[in-house]
Amino acid sequence: MRPMSELRTVEWVKGRVRMIDQTQLPDRLVYVNLRSYRQVSRAIREMVVRGAPAIGVAAAMGMALAAHEGRDKGRDRILKQLDLAAGSLRASRPTAQNLFWAVDRVLQRARNASPNEDLGKLVVDEAERMAEEDVRANLSIGSYGADLLADGDQVLTHCNTGTLATVNYGTALAPIRTAVRQGKRVRVIATETRPRLQGAKLTAYELMSDKIPVTLIADGASGYVIRKGMVQKVIVGADRITKSFVANKVGTYLIALAARESNIPFYVAAPASTFDLRRDVSEVKIEERDRKEVTHINGKRVAARGVPVYNPAFDLTPVELVRGFVTEKGVFTPDALTAQPASIQA
Amino acid sequence: MRPMSELRTVEWVKGRVRMIDQTQLPDRLVYVNLRSYRQVSRAIREMVVRGAPAIGVAAAMGMALAAHEGRDKGRDRILKQLDLAAGSLRASRPTAQNLFWAVDRVLQRARNASPNEDLGKLVVDEAERMAEEDVRANLSIGSYGADLLADGDQVLTHCNTGTLATVNYGTALAPIRTAVRQGKRVRVIATETRPRLQGAKLTAYELMSDKIPVTLIADGASGYVIRKGMVQKVIVGADRITKSFVANKVGTYLIALAARESNIPFYVAAPASTFDLRRDVSEVKIEERDRKEVTHINGKRVAARGVPVYNPAFDLTPVELVRGFVTEKGVFTPDALTAQPASIQA
Repeated sequence: MRPMSELRTVEWVKGRVRMIDQTQLPDRLVYVNLRSYRQVSRAIREMVVRGAPAIGVAAAMGMALAAHEGRDKGRDRILKQLDLAAGSLRASRPTAQNLFWAVDRVLQRARNASPNEDLGKLVVDEAERMAEEDVRANLSIGSYGADLLADGDQVLTHCNTGTLATVNYGTALAPIRTAVRQGKRVRVIATETRPRLQGAKLTAYELMSDKIPVTLIADGASGYVIRKGMVQKVIVGADRITKSFVANKVGTYLIALAARESNIPFYVAAPASTFDLRRDVSEVKIEERDRKEVTHINGKRVAARGVPVYNPAFDLTPVELVRGFVTEKGVFTPDALTAQPASIQA
Repeated sequence: MRPMSELRTVEWVKGRVRMIDQTQLPDRLVYVNLRSYRQVSRAIREMVVRGAPAIGVAAAMGMALAAHEGRDKGRDRILKQLDLAAGSLRASRPTAQNLFWAVDRVLQRARNASPNEDLGKLVVDEAERMAEEDVRANLSIGSYGADLLADGDQVLTHCNTGTLATVNYGTALAPIRTAVRQGKRVRVIATETRPRLQGAKLTAYELMSDKIPVTLIADGASGYVIRKGMVQKVIVGADRITKSFVANKVGTYLIALAARESNIPFYVAAPASTFDLRRDVSEVKIEERDRKEVTHINGKRVAARGVPVYNPAFDLTPVELVRGFVTEKGVFTPDALTAQPASIQA
């Protein structure tokens, strides 16, 4: 088993986007090679790639594919292709801020290019730069976050926020990885994270591959283990952070409530590109996904036949429940989101 | 589909204990006929029958089987058989108070019998009486609880607390059933209830069979739907209620925290036999079940291979989070557990 921390979830390889097919994990570690932005949009929608930062970089690389496709066809044609790609990618999933941030950044870079620049190459370079920045940001999150962890801590986390949710190293798993590399004995409790079981399938796999001790629990057990004193810190990731709320994998809010009740620090680890501090919360769309994610597991029905389902993929945690936001720029309190947004926001 | 409210989960039929095999639901409604207390112990342990009140009655009927087996062998032999059965049944599952209450009640009845009573018949009669009392208690819980529900309410519930958790009619589902019979439009949000999916498999099935509108959610979504205003009341059952805590299906505590946060009434519906008001909470054993309940679904592994699991079947909710305890004797506040235990306790 190769340590997941050595792999790349999304990468640009010779005019293709190569990504780990996360729907095949934990049973098979396979890669897919995508040749068009449409394939990237579909991969995001179908969660071949997931995790807000990974989605952001995948979208940038989808834009790069669009520019690369039209590289011999002139500037106007490339810009038109980029607009089409931007529309398709923006429509793939609604909640992760990184997706919109990444598409906008690439579009801006292309539009602001000087006439003598090679637009195809420029967009590809920008996407690759964003992948490198993601890794650097995560290492920095790891460094700031590791200072919050003590030797012997058991850390509860939700969903998957590791290498597989980013290009490499992770957001909420980054402080854990760095603390372990510093020689601290840190263990993890991972919620299984229904309905798609990213905790059971991805986080458990990823931490085991890196030989970091992990214990899996059902989502409903998080309150009990926190109350019982089994958890010293909670760290989760985020899909979008506004001045009022953290949008993250459904179930996060319940964990935040339980942490507050037991006075356990609840941290959110995310890069600047996840922050959306200009926006009002009412504008954040919470994605509702297919009922079959709840009624079927591995293609087999587990629920009563025909039962109606409500399946929001994310929930909203009030920022007051967050002890600190761990970013590549340092650790911020909830107050800072309002007081100094410009120093946090990408 | 026969309405579940017309069926009996556990019943005494001609010297056998007949019960619905709940491990086969929702796909098949099949009965098993048990001939010995050992078979009943195993049925409880393997969750062929589950739900605190149903477990209690099943245990009483296991005692009845023990007495029935030895019915021609004299009083001492029967009492000895009952002691053996009591030991076996008490060891089947540790948390539900009703199990211990039921076994003790039958034992007491047998020990206090006058010499001229037919001990075999007496024990069988007592077990059948307890089944009838269960149904009457649930109807009474339904009646008291329905007064707490308003026309148009959407009620969130956890796990299964219906006919399948009792002999008939249910505990937390009883107020919903009665309110609907009174003509109130009441809808239910059912959590799927990992790891064993009693909400998805049993509650959804049971409510659909009775044509009561039900929507299934993942466990992690309960906080979001409560915060969003989709829920007017929460009603759950209980496996044991002490002066300090409600032991109930793991996940209950998180729902109680979310309900308090949004000022939504959180009710616990349970018969007197679930209350354990003499005991200190430290004595309540929270059952830990097999890791495979979390790692495997329908026999197929869904989690990363070999991941360690912590799988508590129940959690503890502080009684202060409970707006009211709905019993067959009326609705009690948390204060009453300490102030007037004798008027609640069976």
